Amino acid sequence: MTHAAHRKDTIAAVATPSGQGGVGIIRLSGAASHAIAKRLFHASSDKFSDFKPYTLHHGQLKDADGNVLDDVLTAYMPGPDSFTGEDVVEFNCHGGQAILASVLEECLNAGARLAQKGEFTLRAFLNGRMDLTQAEAVAEMIHAPTRAAAHMAQIKHSGLLGATIAELRTQLEGLRSQLCIAVDFPEEELECLSPEQLVTQSSQVRARMNELLAAVERTKAWREGALVVLAGMVNAGKSSLMNALLGRDRAIVTDVPGTTRDYIEETLDLDGLRVRLADTAGMRESDDTVELAGMTISRELMEQADLVLFVVDNSATIADENVDACLTLDPGKTIAVMNKVDCIAAEPQPWKIFKRYMFELVKVSAKTGKNLDKLTATMRARLLAGQEQPDPDELVPNARQAAALKQACTELEAMETDATGGVPYDLLGVRLETACSKLDAITGTISSDEVLNAIFDDFCIGK
Amino acid sequence: MTHAAHRKDTIAAVATPSGQGGVGIIRLSGAASHAIAKRLFHASSDKFSDFKPYTLHHGQLKDADGNVLDDVLTAYMPGPDSFTGEDVVEFNCHGGQAILASVLEECLNAGARLAQKGEFTLRAFLNGRMDLTQAEAVAEMIHAPTRAAAHMAQIKHSGLLGATIAELRTQLEGLRSQLCIAVDFPEEELECLSPEQLVTQSSQVRARMNELLAAVERTKAWREGALVVLAGMVNAGKSSLMNALLGRDRAIVTDVPGTTRDYIEETLDLDGLRVRLADTAGMRESDDTVELAGMTISRELMEQADLVLFVVDNSATIADENVDACLTLDPGKTIAVMNKVDCIAAEPQPWKIFKRYMFELVKVSAKTGKNLDKLTATMRARLLAGQEQPDPDELVPNARQAAALKQACTELEAMETDATGGVPYDLLGVRLETACSKLDAITGTISSDEVLNAIFDDFCIGK
Repeated sequence: MTHAAHRKDTIAAVATPSGQGGVGIIRLSGAASHAIAKRLFHASSDKFSDFKPYTLHHGQLKDADGNVLDDVLTAYMPGPDSFTGEDVVEFNCHGGQAILASVLEECLNAGARLAQKGEFTLRAFLNGRMDLTQAEAVAEMIHAPTRAAAHMAQIKHSGLLGATIAELRTQLEGLRSQLCIAVDFPEEELECLSPEQLVTQSSQVRARMNELLAAVERTKAWREGALVVLAGMVNAGKSSLMNALLGRDRAIVTDVPGTTRDYIEETLDLDGLRVRLADTAGMRESDDTVELAGMTISRELMEQADLVLFVVDNSATIADENVDACLTLDPGKTIAVMNKVDCIAAEPQPWKIFKRYMFELVKVSAKTGKNLDKLTATMRARLLAGQEQPDPDELVPNARQAAALKQACTELEAMETDATGGVPYDLLGVRLETACSKLDAITGTISSDEVLNAIFDDFCIGK
Repeated sequence: MTHAAHRKDTIAAVATPSGQGGVGIIRLSGAASHAIAKRLFHASSDKFSDFKPYTLHHGQLKDADGNVLDDVLTAYMPGPDSFTGEDVVEFNCHGGQAILASVLEECLNAGARLAQKGEFTLRAFLNGRMDLTQAEAVAEMIHAPTRAAAHMAQIKHSGLLGATIAELRTQLEGLRSQLCIAVDFPEEELECLSPEQLVTQSSQVRARMNELLAAVERTKAWREGALVVLAGMVNAGKSSLMNALLGRDRAIVTDVPGTTRDYIEETLDLDGLRVRLADTAGMRESDDTVELAGMTISRELMEQADLVLFVVDNSATIADENVDACLTLDPGKTIAVMNKVDCIAAEPQPWKIFKRYMFELVKVSAKTGKNLDKLTATMRARLLAGQEQPDPDELVPNARQAAALKQACTELEAMETDATGGVPYDLLGVRLETACSKLDAITGTISSDEVLNAIFDDFCIGK
């Protein structure tokens, strides 16, 4: 879509998740919202003459033939003090799909157009209600898998990232104006920034940018969750271990809807850290699988894994295949799990092999539950690499923002090299300008339709 | 649960469907709602001192440590003018699962209890905000699969069924009081109802009850949708026909989530009538399957089917198996579909066999699309048995209500027989009283915890 166009339309969509629930909301935004609401809404109170802004009115929605569609609460929020900055109406309906579809249909009949993905938030951005980092944070809040991730998105939604970027930009702009003075009035002996001063100040700005970038990796597990893969021979008790781990948190195990995979995946909540636990037990044979020491492990899964639980049966002799496996697994992301420690060990000191290959070792019994606590604690510690909880004020750019920040950093670095090498100030100014434009792209001060499409297409309809 | 107990608790739940969406609502109901909202909510406006009833306030929800959970709109609806009749608060949050979970958690920390299924509506009923038919209609509206079904639920939600039942009860009560006069003052020559008059008036009430009961069957297809099963030999083109029928309505084909079946099922929208179209093509062999004339059809499916499409290949000779099948299929719910009419017929007048067995016949080509319109029109007409659209004011009891109505009818019928047989008036009075109590159970004037549990356990949490 071209965002300049279509902005005069009044848009409508279901704003709540699809499915059945007590309440479902139909949201309208645009100049005709009020008129459409007046046409559909019939207040319960005789005294009703018009919507009072920001007030819930009880009544019925009726179609053009006078058929009642639903009993609703209706709120009218006139622009610019609304989410989109335009006139907004929300119908709080009963949360059934047929009801919401019929109300939406009547809104469209009355002149609204179906909203596109993210179009409400896009309008909020285009109408200056929020900068681009805040608009993106809306989607990040909605999609956040954990409370920690939601909190990090919330911080950006408050505008803190936008403000931080704007401040960095002001500093760069300050540098640039000092260069301009030197360029524009070369004859005058103005108080002028030396190349050394320029480099110092630029690298200070870069340091702050790098701090922001460092947060991306540091908080990855908190924001995106982690993938833990179970590996090991068929009879090592991988499935029992998976069930034992899941059983401990049965209430918070969730299905991954809409995915078909060649392996079993369940979600585990390790004290607020979301872990996808994958077992290749149900995996089909294919070119994509590695026949490694009698274990079938998907190459792709092993590569993606943040952590591998290499499960070995304490009650069986250590097969050669296990030794082979030790050679291929990365100790940096492997925990050796010696299972069935409730059984008598088949050989003396069977764990010696893991010590040799520097694997961290946990001895458990999936059957009795022994040491499962220790295993989950070890998993969590390894995945978080020491960061027990995310910093509550952590400011973390998303992928798009991080890419732009990196580009700005690269540009500043190049400028610093140029400055040290005696490149004229007007050329340095061009580099500073480029760096500023990268920061502008983050906050959306400058943005193309293409960028906006990419951002808002990730939204759901109704937001 | 015991409904008298726990009613003093303040309850909380996510009121919107689960999943991701623009908006998600957390609803509180009970005496502590206002206090909990005051504790969590921090208004954007400096002027805010307290919630104005039925007004949307913008602000942030914070946990006990001052961490921002979300930016929200909050509405406070004091009882008794609220959905439940109690103090209600709604937080319009961003519709993400982690966010909603964190807000809900804080509500619980602040003293609320997690609401049980249907508990908000149960309270609305217990607090006299609606009768039981209206409460049940809430769930029926939410679960309605089609606009027609939602509309029928809406009519009941308006209270029309409750009012109708109450009126019938008043009539029976009137009869009973006239009997009582005769019983209480036997000596006096009071203007008294003769047994004939009693029977006439009772049967008038019964006639109205039977009208209501007749609507249950008449509107079944509209309320519940219909099951159409494809039957026929493996090479008759059942799958192609299924795809062709679905392809015509691709946009409104929906998955049936969470079901695993031994057959393929898709949903088709025939002009507002929801049809489940089942093909046994993917069916596994089992004891449950009938090997009938080379066709595998699930016995259960065939029994449940509202309509069977018996598909025969026009380009192949009519096999003996097809003749056998004709003997077992019920012409009352079968349409013979002669497929591949774009091909040359394998024998002259192959359809003669269907005429003999009284099957309605439609000749189509799944490949070219020929006559598919005619087939869907025929399917729709057969399923609706002539009722092209449901009566917009159709009043349809649900299963529980219908069962109670039937019991009341049976009691009245017995009373009429007794009256004709000269049974004394005081005994007739007991029968009338029983009939009245059945009607009271419909509106909930009398109701047991057991009945209420059965009703409200069908609700979702948050309603």
